[in-house]
Amino acid sequence: MPDTDAINAAIAYSYFENQRGYDTEAVALGEPNDEEKFVLNYFDQKAPRVIETAANEVDEVMLVDHNEFQQSVSDIADVTITHVVDHHRIANFNTTLPLYYRAEPVGCTSTILWEMFNQYDVEIPAKLAGLMMSAIISDTLLLKSPTTTDVDREAVKALAKIANVDYEKYGIEMLKAGTNLSSKSDQELIDQDAKTYTINGTTVRIDQVNTVDLSEVNDRKDGLLKAMEAESKDKGYDLFLLLATDVLNSNSDLYVYGTPTDAVEKAFSITLKDQQANLPGVVSRKKQVVPQLTDAMNA
Amino acid sequence: MPDTDAINAAIAYSYFENQRGYDTEAVALGEPNDEEKFVLNYFDQKAPRVIETAANEVDEVMLVDHNEFQQSVSDIADVTITHVVDHHRIANFNTTLPLYYRAEPVGCTSTILWEMFNQYDVEIPAKLAGLMMSAIISDTLLLKSPTTTDVDREAVKALAKIANVDYEKYGIEMLKAGTNLSSKSDQELIDQDAKTYTINGTTVRIDQVNTVDLSEVNDRKDGLLKAMEAESKDKGYDLFLLLATDVLNSNSDLYVYGTPTDAVEKAFSITLKDQQANLPGVVSRKKQVVPQLTDAMNA
Repeated sequence: MPDTDAINAAIAYSYFENQRGYDTEAVALGEPNDEEKFVLNYFDQKAPRVIETAANEVDEVMLVDHNEFQQSVSDIADVTITHVVDHHRIANFNTTLPLYYRAEPVGCTSTILWEMFNQYDVEIPAKLAGLMMSAIISDTLLLKSPTTTDVDREAVKALAKIANVDYEKYGIEMLKAGTNLSSKSDQELIDQDAKTYTINGTTVRIDQVNTVDLSEVNDRKDGLLKAMEAESKDKGYDLFLLLATDVLNSNSDLYVYGTPTDAVEKAFSITLKDQQANLPGVVSRKKQVVPQLTDAMNA
Repeated sequence: MPDTDAINAAIAYSYFENQRGYDTEAVALGEPNDEEKFVLNYFDQKAPRVIETAANEVDEVMLVDHNEFQQSVSDIADVTITHVVDHHRIANFNTTLPLYYRAEPVGCTSTILWEMFNQYDVEIPAKLAGLMMSAIISDTLLLKSPTTTDVDREAVKALAKIANVDYEKYGIEMLKAGTNLSSKSDQELIDQDAKTYTINGTTVRIDQVNTVDLSEVNDRKDGLLKAMEAESKDKGYDLFLLLATDVLNSNSDLYVYGTPTDAVEKAFSITLKDQQANLPGVVSRKKQVVPQLTDAMNA
């Protein structure tokens, strides 16, 4: 499921290149999630058409917010990639021809696009500014994630001015809209944003659930742990971590099923109680969970 | 042997990033060639230090004018690549962390750097402008190669103005300086800029020799063909092409040893006479030789 940046960066970049003379259509690799539905509705923007393949329609594509082939259309190797704008590592990516590639280690692809609109003097319409601002708020959790850079902060403020939106007030509403947990089953929650890692021979599953109220997750602890147990047995995970993140207060609760629990305790300097512990200040799986756990398990 | 762009782009990019607060040193992966020696002497610039490995000195590197790992320092996988500026395809390249990557399908890396100096309002000193201008003249053969774009043309003119140099007059002198064939043996000439390709099961060697006088090469035809024959037998090449390119008049003579000659004739719509033919307008091995030969041999 594409996130707010993936969809809005596609809309913004397509607009940018069309202003510069290309003929592009923004498309998405899936339906918008709850947060993005709120954003599209707020700014009265239609969701892009969903595609699974590209070569049946076009010879050339531009990619935003990703580059690794396994994250793209299934037939990405059959089309020519002419442009990429992204803020991720580069891996499993190659071309036979020179291309435009614009990457920066900032919090959000839409931040890079904001710089490009400025560089090439392309005016940003108010509605588009709102979409780009939403993407940055989403990726940086309202500029609180450790992935946030000064350029992200500058971009959000400039875009909020163009969109004429109070970004802090809007951002809280938007993040809340993306955390409607009550409509989801335990199984859906432990699966919705889960990734599998192999660390020192151990298979580790780490799921992250965003919320504006950690007690909402805690109330469902028994059911969630049962689902994690069943899933671990079914899929062969040794260790299953559920990271419930309070996106407004930059704080997480960790729920643990499986072993080794001593490595988990060591990684975060915590003592688990009833398979649970609080991780103050932790919001980023990529920066604040995976490296620490990797170090502890390899020690 | 690094070319003029490889070395001068390193010097220019190092200057750029140091102006922006980094502490970098421009280094090279080899000694300057004859053309670049002329350029460095003309603008009174010291050649960068030559390195073969990086991890023994630093943790982080920036790459210019290349990205494929096999073209870089031998221990490239042991250091963190934080920045890349390049105008080639992306292949055999990956990182574990997000980075700055700036690629454009233009004729020269120094052209992209010129855009970056402008974008970030970094002033270009006259001497540096001369080095960057030389790089673009070198990569585009004085703006005549089919790889040349409008941005390359604009960059050369702007840089020539800063450097206070008549770029057309200077460019001819510079290209001539890079084509001092008389000091080189036949063996050196057939090897100095040669690449091997496997096309439809056939091993093809293609060497390119730049000159300002095609007759200078033609006078040595017998010796060159003998060297190509010996090298083919020694290394197992089925087909050896020597492309002698007049860099001032955008024109090439082709010398051929081996088979299949019918595919060569078909590729360029020529009839070989005594293992030789003229290829009017051909200057780029990448764009005007390899694809045509590949098509003919696969037909």
